[in-house]
Amino acid sequence: MTHTRTVELEGHIIDSGTMGRCFGLVMDLGGEFEVEEFDIGRHEDEESYCRLQVRADTEAQLGSILHELHQNGANLSDPVDATLDPAPADRVVPTGFYSTTNHPTQIRYEGAWLDVEDVEMDCAIVVDPDGPRAHTAVLNAVRGGDFVVTGEAGIRVDPPDRPRGPSGPFGFMQGGVSSERPSESLIERVAETLVETAEAGGRVLVVAGPAVIHSGAGDDLARLVREGYVDAISAGNGFAVHDLERAIYGTSLGMNIETLEHPRKGHKHHIYTISEVIRAGGIEAAVADGLVEEGVMYECVRHDVPYVLAGSIRDDGPLPETITDAVEAQNAIREQAHAADMVVMLSTLLHSVAVGNCLPSTTKVVCVDINPATVTQLLDRGSSQAVGMVTDVGTFVPTLAEKVC
Amino acid sequence: MTHTRTVELEGHIIDSGTMGRCFGLVMDLGGEFEVEEFDIGRHEDEESYCRLQVRADTEAQLGSILHELHQNGANLSDPVDATLDPAPADRVVPTGFYSTTNHPTQIRYEGAWLDVEDVEMDCAIVVDPDGPRAHTAVLNAVRGGDFVVTGEAGIRVDPPDRPRGPSGPFGFMQGGVSSERPSESLIERVAETLVETAEAGGRVLVVAGPAVIHSGAGDDLARLVREGYVDAISAGNGFAVHDLERAIYGTSLGMNIETLEHPRKGHKHHIYTISEVIRAGGIEAAVADGLVEEGVMYECVRHDVPYVLAGSIRDDGPLPETITDAVEAQNAIREQAHAADMVVMLSTLLHSVAVGNCLPSTTKVVCVDINPATVTQLLDRGSSQAVGMVTDVGTFVPTLAEKVC
Amino acid sequence: MTHTRTVELEGHIIDSGTMGRCFGLVMDLGGEFEVEEFDIGRHEDEESYCRLQVRADTEAQLGSILHELHQNGANLSDPVDATLDPAPADRVVPTGFYSTTNHPTQIRYEGAWLDVEDVEMDCAIVVDPDGPRAHTAVLNAVRGGDFVVTGEAGIRVDPPDRPRGPSGPFGFMQGGVSSERPSESLIERVAETLVETAEAGGRVLVVAGPAVIHSGAGDDLARLVREGYVDAISAGNGFAVHDLERAIYGTSLGMNIETLEHPRKGHKHHIYTISEVIRAGGIEAAVADGLVEEGVMYECVRHDVPYVLAGSIRDDGPLPETITDAVEAQNAIREQAHAADMVVMLSTLLHSVAVGNCLPSTTKVVCVDINPATVTQLLDRGSSQAVGMVTDVGTFVPTLAEKVC
Amino acid sequence: MTHTRTVELEGHIIDSGTMGRCFGLVMDLGGEFEVEEFDIGRHEDEESYCRLQVRADTEAQLGSILHELHQNGANLSDPVDATLDPAPADRVVPTGFYSTTNHPTQIRYEGAWLDVEDVEMDCAIVVDPDGPRAHTAVLNAVRGGDFVVTGEAGIRVDPPDRPRGPSGPFGFMQGGVSSERPSESLIERVAETLVETAEAGGRVLVVAGPAVIHSGAGDDLARLVREGYVDAISAGNGFAVHDLERAIYGTSLGMNIETLEHPRKGHKHHIYTISEVIRAGGIEAAVADGLVEEGVMYECVRHDVPYVLAGSIRDDGPLPETITDAVEAQNAIREQAHAADMVVMLSTLLHSVAVGNCLPSTTKVVCVDINPATVTQLLDRGSSQAVGMVTDVGTFVPTLAEKVC
Repeated sequence: MTHTRTVELEGHIIDSGTMGRCFGLVMDLGGEFEVEEFDIGRHEDEESYCRLQVRADTEAQLGSILHELHQNGANLSDPVDATLDPAPADRVVPTGFYSTTNHPTQIRYEGAWLDVEDVEMDCAIVVDPDGPRAHTAVLNAVRGGDFVVTGEAGIRVDPPDRPRGPSGPFGFMQGGVSSERPSESLIERVAETLVETAEAGGRVLVVAGPAVIHSGAGDDLARLVREGYVDAISAGNGFAVHDLERAIYGTSLGMNIETLEHPRKGHKHHIYTISEVIRAGGIEAAVADGLVEEGVMYECVRHDVPYVLAGSIRDDGPLPETITDAVEAQNAIREQAHAADMVVMLSTLLHSVAVGNCLPSTTKVVCVDINPATVTQLLDRGSSQAVGMVTDVGTFVPTLAEKVC
Repeated sequence: MTHTRTVELEGHIIDSGTMGRCFGLVMDLGGEFEVEEFDIGRHEDEESYCRLQVRADTEAQLGSILHELHQNGANLSDPVDATLDPAPADRVVPTGFYSTTNHPTQIRYEGAWLDVEDVEMDCAIVVDPDGPRAHTAVLNAVRGGDFVVTGEAGIRVDPPDRPRGPSGPFGFMQGGVSSERPSESLIERVAETLVETAEAGGRVLVVAGPAVIHSGAGDDLARLVREGYVDAISAGNGFAVHDLERAIYGTSLGMNIETLEHPRKGHKHHIYTISEVIRAGGIEAAVADGLVEEGVMYECVRHDVPYVLAGSIRDDGPLPETITDAVEAQNAIREQAHAADMVVMLSTLLHSVAVGNCLPSTTKVVCVDINPATVTQLLDRGSSQAVGMVTDVGTFVPTLAEKVC
Repeated sequence: MTHTRTVELEGHIIDSGTMGRCFGLVMDLGGEFEVEEFDIGRHEDEESYCRLQVRADTEAQLGSILHELHQNGANLSDPVDATLDPAPADRVVPTGFYSTTNHPTQIRYEGAWLDVEDVEMDCAIVVDPDGPRAHTAVLNAVRGGDFVVTGEAGIRVDPPDRPRGPSGPFGFMQGGVSSERPSESLIERVAETLVETAEAGGRVLVVAGPAVIHSGAGDDLARLVREGYVDAISAGNGFAVHDLERAIYGTSLGMNIETLEHPRKGHKHHIYTISEVIRAGGIEAAVADGLVEEGVMYECVRHDVPYVLAGSIRDDGPLPETITDAVEAQNAIREQAHAADMVVMLSTLLHSVAVGNCLPSTTKVVCVDINPATVTQLLDRGSSQAVGMVTDVGTFVPTLAEKVC
Repeated sequence: MTHTRTVELEGHIIDSGTMGRCFGLVMDLGGEFEVEEFDIGRHEDEESYCRLQVRADTEAQLGSILHELHQNGANLSDPVDATLDPAPADRVVPTGFYSTTNHPTQIRYEGAWLDVEDVEMDCAIVVDPDGPRAHTAVLNAVRGGDFVVTGEAGIRVDPPDRPRGPSGPFGFMQGGVSSERPSESLIERVAETLVETAEAGGRVLVVAGPAVIHSGAGDDLARLVREGYVDAISAGNGFAVHDLERAIYGTSLGMNIETLEHPRKGHKHHIYTISEVIRAGGIEAAVADGLVEEGVMYECVRHDVPYVLAGSIRDDGPLPETITDAVEAQNAIREQAHAADMVVMLSTLLHSVAVGNCLPSTTKVVCVDINPATVTQLLDRGSSQAVGMVTDVGTFVPTLAEKVC
């Protein structure tokens, strides 16, 4: 017996590759399709429309196909309400739960489309009948009895169009990640986007690894904070300790960043720094006491730029402000990510992945690392506006600060 | 004034992304299009057809658009003969020469379509009116007076369809290059393809770097040669010297591959090896004399497997067989590449790029390197059947030989 | 005024480079030295002895020099008791605290030398007068009032001799990290050491990243556990989820490891796996229930091999067994590390660094990763017996299991 | 029977590690030693002296030991003349030929010490009795009948002392290669050394890969040439073509470096560039004709800075100036290398290795690459003054030019 459903595709579905992808999916998954209507956008400004009948031998197979089509923006043409099933227990999803993409999503509830709030990949969608409202929930946040969306019906996904042409602030990296690109010109574009975002009142989140400090870029990141180009910092315990060591002892892991001298006892500075900040009562107190008088953390305290320091199993200390519980830290990062309009990731795989996991595909992302594998891994899960640069943060941040400030 | 031409697209143009790419190209380059006819393939077996009218403000702009459309398989619907212009001098192309893709290509000459022979990227097409025949020519091979194809008219390009679904010998790597894949299962597929190619009478070209020997895989590559799974070897002077050193002294750059002992005087073995082979009169003579009694080069000589050893500026020696002139060596590699049905590239960027440059997009390629950047770089220029594996040749070759032999 | 102290060096101080390093240190730090006695070991079996008078202009400078000499095994010739100062508060060290190396260390307390227990880098030494006993304490474990060793006096450090010659199980990698080594032969040596360690009743700790499962090596690691070659596993939430997904659904991040098919809905398996294990009540319960019937975690449960799953901010879930608090997780890892006689690190930077931080320099370490930077970073902080291999875990683990089992 | 010889070590043999290395070598190779005299340098300015009797069971073993000791600077105390044997044929060395290090070397001939000219690794030493003079010869340059040094007697090697302390222009990178270093401060030191070398009348050789142009650093390298900080360029055909394409079409492989626009027909520019330069009669003619009016090659022509363009098997074209024969090109590179006082290697493994092979250990080397493996590989064979930087040439060269000019 043949099982049939009809889906619709709308937008720049041809040149963004969506339509091709959808046709391919149906065939890869063993289904068939019939194009019932096809209205092609004939130039840049016109969108296309395609109504597609999809057929499969079993309902399960059809379900698989529809699931994939959904992920790519094809929506059922005969909308019904989304199916809701109660979660059987805390942190347990009902069978057949709908797993989210990172694209803007709506679900149909009692005949009306609700925007899903806080869109993020690989989550469940929980519907609160009061309101009514729909929001994503990571597995850990699902509570027994929550109404969780299951199946594919009654859900609309709207993947952003691929930016077209050489226009647009982030249109310049469409050919993927490479170190063989004109570095200075690329940084110019990042600077422009940063300024535009700031001027439009958008929020900029900087995700920073310890290499920012080792590579000597701490002063310039501090300058960007001081000048108001950074609205939040997401980092680990190590980043903050290196920055504070620099402020207190003038060294980073014992090396003087300017003179390149390496006081032999310097590696004790790392532990001392934590010890002294603990003694002072934390970073804010250390700034208030005058123990810390410069650096990224200093500027954050001075200019009320919120930061999240997430703990990890390789930390020394940690600092009092470091959130040692991974779930709690992830939730704090999630809030930062959801609030951001632009994210600049600087030389940290762990923290960049953690932030990237929480981002909708509509957030602008710049990812800078000297290791191409890191950049590739981040962009692979990223939004279509993501930009990767394989370069040295030790020259990237100073050049960016120079162009922006 | 608007300039207009009509092009046609045929085949699996939607699910292979060709149609989306072509629409995007027109818009990116500032042109407009009108879909005059669109006949969609409704399931896996049906091909689609699209006739597209392209418009641009200037003839130059239209030319650019048509050039790009060509590269992606869109052909002019009102075929005229290709334009031919004589090359002004040796190694000089006429203005507006057509630069080839690596896809199967035809040109129209006196009303008939000629297959372009020896298809290869970034070449000129030279037409020999006697025959008539058309073939690619690298710049270096263009002679003053040669009839060189210019412009975009009268040329048909036929990019291979993207393999669809999980089927097909090389269908297993469509998600790009990654080290996080099941190595043993992947090698199993490469082994199957190697056996299929051999059984079908196809030619297998192995491109090998010195790391094959250092990593201890020399015996297993020799075994593959001996067992008849290798029809040609493309390598450098270094590869051959390491292999011969191994045969003569049991070391590779002075290290014993089995015992891992490192005789201190071992690094002299490298120079001695070359000196002794020169004294013997070359590799073949060294085998005949009994100086060399095992290894890859030995098996090549014994089993009449032809090899090309290309010289480079970092070589010691070189060996008598090494072709020191880059142009001559490239021509020898070109012949190997054109004759191959399957190419296995083992841990060498330089030689793999040199071979890859000469391959049509229809040749099966497997590229193995422990450095993901090498694999990415090679696949980027590669054919749609290319497979990349980020793994250790020191375990890859033994495992492959085990599965094949 | 000149400040003077006398130190002694003993052992293979010349060929292990210790003496050269110590002479260089004094000069680099602006001091002077006079060799008071020098008794050279004249062949391999004889140790050397050197008594050195060190001079500096200030007591502070002398302190710096003595600190560094200590770290390299030079001990004061006129031993006095170690200085003890009480920690001013929880997680605060007294000024001038002695920061440990990862080498075997003794401190002098009331005229007798005490071994420092649980030796580990970058810790304080806390002395418990009852006993008396001395042990390392990470900053986080220091309690107000603890007697902490300060200064350099009364401390002896005994760095292990560099392994000499081609002998010894791990003597084969002294030339640093490289992918250009004979892979099969190296794995043979690792296998021998693993068997020797097991036969001698030593404990083997395997540190494993998710790539072990993705690369298809899960079955072989499970086999090593089943056959008794693994005494403990240190991993993250991700590793366990991938392994369990494999056991429950036959996929890893949605890809079937054997058939390489990629069921399109597969990425939901990851979340489902966690959800189902939570529903079952944890990993042990999931094994008891028959939900999980194979894999690494299964064998660990079946064979009472303890494991630590440390949480991180990029985790999904996490599983009930995952320790989400970084400090608690680090402590659990610390116990694993201190108990281990041999550590095999497989494709995980984060967990390998966390374990490596806790290891004394006397523990055998093998670190396997396809990324040379990971291997280098781990060995840099490692013991003199550490062995690095740049290879593919997807072929390494199967080959190792084949040789061992 | 015991075979015995006495060797001497002189200089900073302890803190430079030489003495430790030599003791270790004797033991590793199964010999014994007796320290006959040991006069220790007691502070920084004093050198040490050690006379060592070395014993081995066989003459062959003793020979091996002496060979290694030589390589590390230990010289026979009872100097005899070096042994000379005639080369049996062109490109064939006599048995037991002495293979050079890259350190300053002397040989004893008729009772007097001759400096070996053009010191370079892995060469033979040929003595010309007229003069008399001694010089290195690569295998390829050995002629039948040449007097070649064999054995270990009558040879003195003088490895440079390891730079000590934080002083000295290149004293700042002694801890090996790492990207986690303060980039701007490091570039400052390179700039100082460049200026010092220029002011002292030294010759600066720049080895440049195509990434210099792609990454947008071409203008700044051209500026360094124009301002007189570059005395020679060593590159490949690709580098020159990209630079010339940039000058003629404003693109590099088709991409506009400033606007980042990517004219779709741009990839033809590469072939056109070569074709046009060939038509003009070469680079110099193209500059004279006004075809090329800017860029690195332009400045080289204008300011009489000699360049070597070495061909390779992956080249397009090549340009008329490109030396396609590997042996001829290597000889041209050898001359550049021997004449240089400072070498700056920018993002090219092949050309950097080729140059590095020809350098004595006394030449200052800076190697810049975004890939740490490239930097490591180059420094491994390098001199003790070699400096590695893992950074982006696209920001390195502009920052360097800014600091220098």
